[in-house]
Amino acid sequence: MTDLTIRRATADDLPAIVAMLADDPLGATRESPDDLTPYRTAFARIDADPHQHLVVAERTGRTVGTLQLTVVPGLSRKGSTRTIIEAVRIHADERGNGLGTELIRWAIDRSRELDADLVQLTSDATRTDAHRFYERLGFVASHLGFKLAL
Amino acid sequence: MTDLTIRRATADDLPAIVAMLADDPLGATRESPDDLTPYRTAFARIDADPHQHLVVAERTGRTVGTLQLTVVPGLSRKGSTRTIIEAVRIHADERGNGLGTELIRWAIDRSRELDADLVQLTSDATRTDAHRFYERLGFVASHLGFKLAL
Repeated sequence: MTDLTIRRATADDLPAIVAMLADDPLGATRESPDDLTPYRTAFARIDADPHQHLVVAERTGRTVGTLQLTVVPGLSRKGSTRTIIEAVRIHADERGNGLGTELIRWAIDRSRELDADLVQLTSDATRTDAHRFYERLGFVASHLGFKLAL
Repeated sequence: MTDLTIRRATADDLPAIVAMLADDPLGATRESPDDLTPYRTAFARIDADPHQHLVVAERTGRTVGTLQLTVVPGLSRKGSTRTIIEAVRIHADERGNGLGTELIRWAIDRSRELDADLVQLTSDATRTDAHRFYERLGFVASHLGFKLAL
Protein backbone atom coordinates (compact mmCIF):
# COMPACT_ATOMS: atom_id res chain seq x y z
CA MET A 1 0.00 0.00 0.00
CA THR A 2 2.81 2.44 -0.86
CA ASP A 3 2.20 6.03 -1.91
CA LEU A 4 -1.39 6.03 -0.71
CA THR A 5 -2.80 9.37 0.44
CA ILE A 6 -6.29 9.85 1.88
CA ARG A 7 -7.28 13.51 1.84
CA ARG A 8 -10.29 15.82 1.85
CA ALA A 9 -11.98 15.98 -1.56
CA THR A 10 -12.10 19.22 -3.53
CA ALA A 11 -14.36 20.27 -6.41
CA ASP A 12 -11.55 19.28 -8.77
CA ASP A 13 -12.01 15.66 -7.68
CA LEU A 14 -15.62 15.50 -8.82
CA PRO A 15 -15.05 13.95 -12.28
CA ALA A 16 -13.01 11.10 -10.76
CA ILE A 17 -15.43 10.57 -7.86
CA VAL A 18 -18.52 10.53 -10.09
CA ALA A 19 -16.80 8.13 -12.51
CA MET A 20 -16.28 5.73 -9.58
CA LEU A 21 -19.89 6.14 -8.38
CA ALA A 22 -21.10 5.25 -11.89
CA ASP A 23 -18.70 2.32 -12.38
CA ASP A 24 -20.71 -0.02 -10.17
CA PRO A 25 -23.58 -2.47 -10.80
CA LEU A 26 -26.04 -0.32 -8.84
CA GLY A 27 -24.50 3.07 -9.63
CA ALA A 28 -24.54 2.48 -13.40
CA THR A 29 -28.33 2.87 -13.44
CA ARG A 30 -28.59 5.97 -11.27
CA GLU A 31 -25.64 8.28 -11.93
CA SER A 32 -24.99 10.79 -14.73
CA PRO A 33 -21.20 11.08 -15.16
CA ASP A 34 -21.64 13.13 -18.34
CA ASP A 35 -23.42 15.93 -16.50
CA LEU A 36 -21.61 17.04 -13.35
CA THR A 37 -23.97 19.95 -12.60
CA PRO A 38 -26.03 18.20 -9.89
CA TYR A 39 -22.84 16.86 -8.31
CA ARG A 40 -21.29 20.34 -8.15
CA THR A 41 -24.36 21.66 -6.32
CA ALA A 42 -24.25 18.72 -3.91
CA PHE A 43 -20.50 19.10 -3.37
CA ALA A 44 -20.99 22.70 -2.27
CA ARG A 45 -23.51 21.53 0.35
CA ILE A 46 -21.19 18.79 1.61
CA ASP A 47 -18.18 21.10 1.69
CA ALA A 48 -20.06 23.74 3.72
CA ASP A 49 -21.14 21.25 6.41
CA PRO A 50 -18.47 20.78 9.12
CA HIS A 51 -19.97 17.40 10.01
CA GLN A 52 -19.28 15.98 6.56
CA HIS A 53 -15.93 14.44 5.71
CA LEU A 54 -15.74 13.55 2.02
CA VAL A 55 -12.36 12.09 1.11
CA VAL A 56 -10.52 10.62 -1.83
CA ALA A 57 -7.67 8.11 -1.85
CA GLU A 58 -4.83 8.91 -4.23
CA ARG A 59 -2.00 6.70 -5.39
CA THR A 60 0.79 8.12 -7.52
CA GLY A 61 -1.41 11.00 -8.60
CA ARG A 62 -4.47 8.89 -9.51
CA THR A 63 -7.78 9.04 -7.63
CA VAL A 64 -8.45 5.43 -6.66
CA GLY A 65 -11.12 5.56 -3.95
CA THR A 66 -13.63 7.68 -2.07
CA LEU A 67 -15.95 7.64 0.90
CA GLN A 68 -18.08 10.06 2.89
CA LEU A 69 -18.19 10.16 6.68
CA THR A 70 -21.02 11.99 8.49
CA VAL A 71 -20.87 12.85 12.20
CA VAL A 72 -24.23 12.45 13.95
CA PRO A 73 -24.50 13.53 17.59
CA GLY A 74 -27.30 11.74 19.42
CA LEU A 75 -28.99 11.20 22.76
CA SER A 76 -29.35 7.43 22.77
CA ARG A 77 -26.63 5.20 24.27
CA LYS A 78 -25.87 7.88 26.91
CA GLY A 79 -25.44 10.68 24.43
CA SER A 80 -23.32 8.76 21.93
CA THR A 81 -21.99 10.35 18.79
CA ARG A 82 -22.01 8.06 15.80
CA THR A 83 -20.45 8.35 12.39
CA ILE A 84 -22.06 7.05 9.23
CA ILE A 85 -20.02 5.84 6.26
CA GLU A 86 -21.65 6.33 2.86
CA ALA A 87 -20.66 6.13 -0.78
CA VAL A 88 -17.61 3.88 -0.50
CA ARG A 89 -16.14 3.29 -3.93
CA ILE A 90 -12.87 1.74 -5.09
CA HIS A 91 -11.53 2.23 -8.61
CA ALA A 92 -11.95 -0.93 -10.72
CA ASP A 93 -8.15 -1.20 -11.17
CA GLU A 94 -7.64 -1.29 -7.41
CA ARG A 95 -10.27 -3.76 -6.25
CA GLY A 96 -9.05 -6.70 -4.21
CA ASN A 97 -5.71 -5.19 -3.25
CA GLY A 98 -6.56 -3.89 0.21
CA LEU A 99 -7.48 -0.31 -0.61
CA GLY A 100 -11.03 -0.78 0.72
CA THR A 101 -9.57 -1.93 4.02
CA GLU A 102 -7.29 1.12 4.14
CA LEU A 103 -10.21 3.46 3.45
CA ILE A 104 -12.50 1.93 6.07
CA ARG A 105 -9.66 1.86 8.61
CA TRP A 106 -9.13 5.55 7.88
CA ALA A 107 -12.84 6.16 8.56
CA ILE A 108 -12.68 4.22 11.83
CA ASP A 109 -9.56 6.11 12.98
CA ARG A 110 -11.09 9.46 11.99
CA SER A 111 -14.29 8.53 13.87
CA ARG A 112 -12.23 7.91 17.01
CA GLU A 113 -10.48 11.28 16.58
CA LEU A 114 -13.94 12.86 16.29
CA ASP A 115 -14.93 11.23 19.63
CA ALA A 116 -17.51 8.95 18.04
CA ASP A 117 -18.64 5.89 19.98
CA LEU A 118 -20.06 3.95 17.07
CA VAL A 119 -19.45 3.70 13.32
CA GLN A 120 -22.34 2.55 11.18
CA LEU A 121 -23.14 1.97 7.55
CA THR A 122 -25.68 0.21 5.41
CA SER A 123 -24.91 -2.00 2.47
CA ASP A 124 -27.33 -3.09 -0.22
CA ALA A 125 -28.56 -6.63 0.53
CA THR A 126 -27.28 -7.75 -2.89
CA ARG A 127 -23.66 -6.77 -2.13
CA THR A 128 -22.72 -10.02 -0.37
CA ASP A 129 -18.98 -9.58 -0.97
CA ALA A 130 -19.18 -6.21 0.77
CA HIS A 131 -20.94 -7.82 3.74
CA ARG A 132 -18.10 -10.30 4.29
CA PHE A 133 -15.62 -7.44 3.91
CA TYR A 134 -17.27 -5.34 6.63
CA GLU A 135 -17.58 -8.34 8.94
CA ARG A 136 -13.86 -9.05 8.56
CA LEU A 137 -13.23 -5.46 9.69
CA GLY A 138 -15.26 -6.05 12.88
CA PHE A 139 -18.65 -4.67 11.87
CA VAL A 140 -21.74 -6.56 13.03
CA ALA A 141 -24.76 -6.87 10.71
CA SER A 142 -27.17 -6.30 13.59
CA HIS A 143 -29.72 -4.15 11.76
CA LEU A 144 -31.96 -3.98 8.72
CA GLY A 145 -31.64 -0.86 6.59
CA PHE A 146 -34.88 0.68 5.32
CA LYS A 147 -35.16 3.28 2.55
CA LEU A 148 -38.04 5.33 1.23
CA ALA A 149 -37.58 7.27 -2.02
CA LEU A 150 -39.35 10.65 -1.98
CA MET B 1 -54.97 11.91 17.12
CA THR B 2 -56.33 15.08 18.68
CA ASP B 3 -54.16 17.61 20.47
CA LEU B 4 -50.94 16.20 19.07
CA THR B 5 -48.07 18.66 18.62
CA ILE B 6 -44.69 17.74 17.13
CA ARG B 7 -42.10 20.40 17.92
CA ARG B 8 -38.37 20.95 18.24
CA ALA B 9 -37.00 19.53 21.51
CA THR B 10 -35.48 21.82 24.13
CA ALA B 11 -33.15 21.01 27.03
CA ASP B 12 -36.23 20.96 29.28
CA ASP B 13 -37.46 17.90 27.39
CA LEU B 14 -34.40 15.81 28.26
CA PRO B 15 -35.83 13.98 31.31
CA ALA B 16 -38.88 12.85 29.32
CA ILE B 17 -36.84 11.89 26.24
CA VAL B 18 -34.26 9.92 28.22
CA ALA B 19 -37.03 8.13 30.14
CA MET B 20 -38.46 6.98 26.79
CA LEU B 21 -35.03 5.91 25.51
CA ALA B 22 -34.57 3.80 28.65
CA ASP B 23 -38.09 2.29 28.61
CA ASP B 24 -37.28 -0.13 25.82
CA PRO B 25 -35.96 -3.73 25.72
CA LEU B 26 -32.66 -2.60 24.15
CA GLY B 27 -32.47 0.84 25.76
CA ALA B 28 -32.92 -0.51 29.30
CA THR B 29 -29.41 -1.95 29.21
CA ARG B 30 -27.61 1.03 27.76
CA GLU B 31 -29.17 4.24 29.09
CA SER B 32 -28.70 6.07 32.42
CA PRO B 33 -31.93 8.00 33.13
CA ASP B 34 -30.75 8.83 36.67
CA ASP B 35 -27.77 10.80 35.38
CA LEU B 36 -28.67 13.29 32.67
CA THR B 37 -25.18 14.82 32.45
CA PRO B 38 -24.05 12.98 29.28
CA TYR B 39 -27.39 13.69 27.64
CA ARG B 40 -27.11 17.42 28.35
CA THR B 41 -23.69 17.52 26.69
CA ALA B 42 -25.03 15.60 23.70
CA PHE B 43 -28.13 17.80 23.47
CA ALA B 44 -25.94 20.89 23.17
CA ARG B 45 -24.12 19.30 20.22
CA ILE B 46 -27.39 18.34 18.51
CA ASP B 47 -28.96 21.74 19.11
CA ALA B 48 -25.94 23.55 17.62
CA ASP B 49 -26.00 21.52 14.39
CA PRO B 50 -28.42 22.97 11.81
CA HIS B 51 -28.66 19.57 10.09
CA GLN B 52 -30.11 17.92 13.18
CA HIS B 53 -33.84 18.00 13.85
CA LEU B 54 -34.63 16.50 17.25
CA VAL B 55 -38.34 16.64 18.01
CA VAL B 56 -40.82 15.59 20.65
CA ALA B 57 -44.50 14.79 20.29
CA GLU B 58 -46.75 16.26 22.95
CA ARG B 59 -50.34 15.44 23.74
CA THR B 60 -52.25 17.50 26.30
CA GLY B 61 -49.01 18.68 27.87
CA ARG B 62 -47.37 15.24 28.10
CA THR B 63 -44.29 14.23 26.12
CA VAL B 64 -45.33 11.05 24.32
CA GLY B 65 -42.79 10.52 21.56
CA THR B 66 -39.47 11.57 20.07
CA LEU B 67 -37.27 11.11 17.03
CA GLN B 68 -34.16 12.61 15.50
CA LEU B 69 -33.80 13.49 11.82
CA THR B 70 -30.35 14.13 10.30
CA VAL B 71 -29.87 15.76 6.90
CA VAL B 72 -27.00 14.22 4.92
CA PRO B 73 -26.06 15.84 1.60
CA GLY B 74 -24.31 13.40 -0.73
CA LEU B 75 -22.88 12.89 -4.20
CA SER B 76 -24.35 9.50 -5.08
CA ARG B 77 -27.69 9.22 -6.89
CA LYS B 78 -26.95 12.46 -8.81
CA GLY B 79 -26.16 14.49 -5.73
CA SER B 80 -29.08 13.29 -3.62
CA THR B 81 -29.67 14.58 -0.14
CA ARG B 82 -30.91 11.92 2.26
CA THR B 83 -32.33 12.16 5.74
CA ILE B 84 -31.71 9.59 8.43
CA ILE B 85 -34.24 8.84 11.15
CA GLU B 86 -32.76 7.74 14.48
CA ALA B 87 -33.93 7.22 18.05
CA VAL B 88 -37.66 6.81 17.44
CA ARG B 89 -39.42 6.22 20.75
CA ILE B 90 -43.09 6.17 21.72
CA HIS B 91 -44.23 6.43 25.35
CA ALA B 92 -45.46 3.05 26.66
CA ASP B 93 -48.96 4.51 27.27
CA GLU B 94 -49.26 5.51 23.61
CA ARG B 95 -48.04 2.42 21.78
CA GLY B 96 -50.37 0.95 19.21
CA ASN B 97 -52.54 4.03 18.79
CA GLY B 98 -51.00 5.51 15.66
CA LEU B 99 -48.56 7.95 17.21
CA GLY B 100 -45.58 6.18 15.61
CA THR B 101 -47.22 6.62 12.22
CA GLU B 102 -47.79 10.32 12.91
CA LEU B 103 -44.16 10.80 13.93
CA ILE B 104 -42.71 8.99 10.91
CA ARG B 105 -45.11 10.83 8.58
CA TRP B 106 -43.88 14.08 10.14
CA ALA B 107 -40.29 13.00 9.41
CA ILE B 108 -41.16 12.14 5.80
CA ASP B 109 -42.95 15.48 5.28
CA ARG B 110 -40.09 17.41 6.90
CA SER B 111 -37.61 15.52 4.67
CA ARG B 112 -39.54 16.67 1.60
CA GLU B 113 -39.50 20.27 2.87
CA LEU B 114 -35.74 19.93 3.31
CA ASP B 115 -35.45 18.80 -0.35
CA ALA B 116 -34.33 15.30 0.53
CA ASP B 117 -34.65 12.58 -2.11
CA LEU B 118 -34.47 9.61 0.23
CA VAL B 119 -35.36 8.85 3.85
CA GLN B 120 -33.47 6.04 5.52
CA LEU B 121 -33.24 4.36 8.88
CA THR B 122 -31.94 1.19 10.42
CA SER B 123 -33.83 -0.99 12.84
CA ASP B 124 -32.35 -3.67 15.08
CA ALA B 125 -32.89 -7.09 13.51
CA THR B 126 -34.73 -8.20 16.64
CA ARG B 127 -37.43 -5.50 16.32
CA THR B 128 -39.68 -7.46 13.95
CA ASP B 129 -42.80 -5.47 14.84
CA ALA B 130 -40.95 -2.29 13.88
CA HIS B 131 -39.98 -3.81 10.53
CA ARG B 132 -43.61 -4.48 9.61
CA PHE B 133 -44.48 -0.97 10.77
CA TYR B 134 -41.89 0.66 8.48
CA GLU B 135 -42.89 -1.54 5.54
CA ARG B 136 -46.51 -0.49 5.98
CA LEU B 137 -45.33 3.13 5.70
CA GLY B 138 -43.64 2.38 2.36
CA PHE B 139 -40.06 1.76 3.45
CA VAL B 140 -38.17 -1.06 1.73
CA ALA B 141 -35.77 -3.25 3.73
CA SER B 142 -33.22 -3.26 0.93
CA HIS B 143 -30.07 -3.01 3.05
CA LEU B 144 -28.18 -4.59 5.91
CA GLY B 145 -27.13 -2.25 8.71
CA PHE B 146 -23.62 -2.74 10.11
CA LYS B 147 -22.30 -1.26 13.34
CA LEU B 148 -18.87 -1.15 14.95
CA ALA B 149 -18.55 0.01 18.56
CA LEU B 150 -15.41 2.07 19.18
